[in-house]
Amino acid sequence: MLINARNVRIQWGDCDPMGIVFFPRYFAIFDDSTSMLFERALGATKFELLARYHFHGFPLVDIRTRFLVPSRFGDDVVVESGVSEFRRSSFDVQHRLLKSGELAVECFETRVWTVKDEDGRMHGTPVPEEVRAKFG
Amino acid sequence: MLINARNVRIQWGDCDPMGIVFFPRYFAIFDDSTSMLFERALGATKFELLARYHFHGFPLVDIRTRFLVPSRFGDDVVVESGVSEFRRSSFDVQHRLLKSGELAVECFETRVWTVKDEDGRMHGTPVPEEVRAKFG
Amino acid sequence: MLINARNVRIQWGDCDPMGIVFFPRYFAIFDDSTSMLFERALGATKFELLARYHFHGFPLVDIRTRFLVPSRFGDDVVVESGVSEFRRSSFDVQHRLLKSGELAVECFETRVWTVKDEDGRMHGTPVPEEVRAKFG
Amino acid sequence: MLINARNVRIQWGDCDPMGIVFFPRYFAIFDDSTSMLFERALGATKFELLARYHFHGFPLVDIRTRFLVPSRFGDDVVVESGVSEFRRSSFDVQHRLLKSGELAVECFETRVWTVKDEDGRMHGTPVPEEVRAKFG
Repeated sequence: MLINARNVRIQWGDCDPMGIVFFPRYFAIFDDSTSMLFERALGATKFELLARYHFHGFPLVDIRTRFLVPSRFGDDVVVESGVSEFRRSSFDVQHRLLKSGELAVECFETRVWTVKDEDGRMHGTPVPEEVRAKFG
Repeated sequence: MLINARNVRIQWGDCDPMGIVFFPRYFAIFDDSTSMLFERALGATKFELLARYHFHGFPLVDIRTRFLVPSRFGDDVVVESGVSEFRRSSFDVQHRLLKSGELAVECFETRVWTVKDEDGRMHGTPVPEEVRAKFG
Repeated sequence: MLINARNVRIQWGDCDPMGIVFFPRYFAIFDDSTSMLFERALGATKFELLARYHFHGFPLVDIRTRFLVPSRFGDDVVVESGVSEFRRSSFDVQHRLLKSGELAVECFETRVWTVKDEDGRMHGTPVPEEVRAKFG
Repeated sequence: MLINARNVRIQWGDCDPMGIVFFPRYFAIFDDSTSMLFERALGATKFELLARYHFHGFPLVDIRTRFLVPSRFGDDVVVESGVSEFRRSSFDVQHRLLKSGELAVECFETRVWTVKDEDGRMHGTPVPEEVRAKFG
């Protein structure tokens, strides 16, 4: 499985009055990581990929997350992300957020390769063969 | 089960370049709903509850969410929230986000009643009996 | 000047480790208020207005804000918003956030009525006469 | 003036339905940059600085921002930040966000070195001499 790992600094504005990460911010971090995983696999930013493959995004249909160790502003964490399975038009992404090498947050996303019609309706469409191939 | 229902207007700034809710924003909405559920049950804001019960928050340890129907800015949705189970120091919250009466997002949170020590370390502590009692 | 006033509850997730509003959250609140001011004046959501007037948004070109009194989660504040001036394709919005009747935050936005071309380029376009008229 | 420059990738979740940065996200980016400027000058994270200098944050009292060129997801921008003036307990921070070398956003913040009393009241306190000295 192709894994993209990146360093993330937890910031003041990511944290709540307890001084730890406000959990929706983890999901923004994971969403960024999914984009960067696809950029690494396909050699193009998400903006460029939308144009290249004529789709409009890969919104979530399901997410499961366990929060094991809290983080606070000033912490440097590592986020490792990979696609664990491609199906016809959906795929699963796994994220592991590590703090000092220890698993702190674990997240499983299911996303759908999506096209938006002229009238604004959205529907899944097959993940391009070229995309699967690049993930190996 | 005590259910708190509230109306939420989806805003421009909640939405992504596809024009639909950027999913981490749903979690901020659900977090607000959890606070408002406790306010309804206990007759005090979260700020007041922290002082009354000498605790520091109820961070998440687990969340599972299904996204069934997308919403976009200008949509008015209803969020229904309830505590499905209290255990010693943890509890489960369920949120149902309805769009035109249809289930659009379903979320299951597990949270821990938490105290922060002088040195900043956090640990679970029993949910006060008075709190459970108010939820019936 | 047509003023739209609305009540806003400051939430846990709006606040930083000091326990007060993380200032970018004020700007999301003001952006929502601008949308709701236009909805009040024109009787349609921002989503509907984009379709009705064939434009794509009214992004900011300038903002000035004074933060006079901090707010924390659990506070109920009032946000009053109005358009102080319409020019050809730009306009000024003023927001006053009041806490217990006292001015807590004051914000002046300048926005441009904007169209996005086929190639993604954006440019200002005259504010429709009908829009100005509705603001009186 | 000590300037801290850093690269920032604009992400999908930073952008609105027009596909450009939702402006409150710029302020979160600038807030992060202010923290990182202080870290560079003082050799410690904001978390460590709060403990070292016995204060609780440096919230804003004033901000002025001009948005000159929009950015969209996939764009790589540079943010340059510096303190232009220290006064007794307040100071001014300037941020310049550059896109392809061109000034895209310009921001002027005034912040106050702040202590939070036992009862939660906040007040300004003199910026430590050691802090000013490190900024040269």
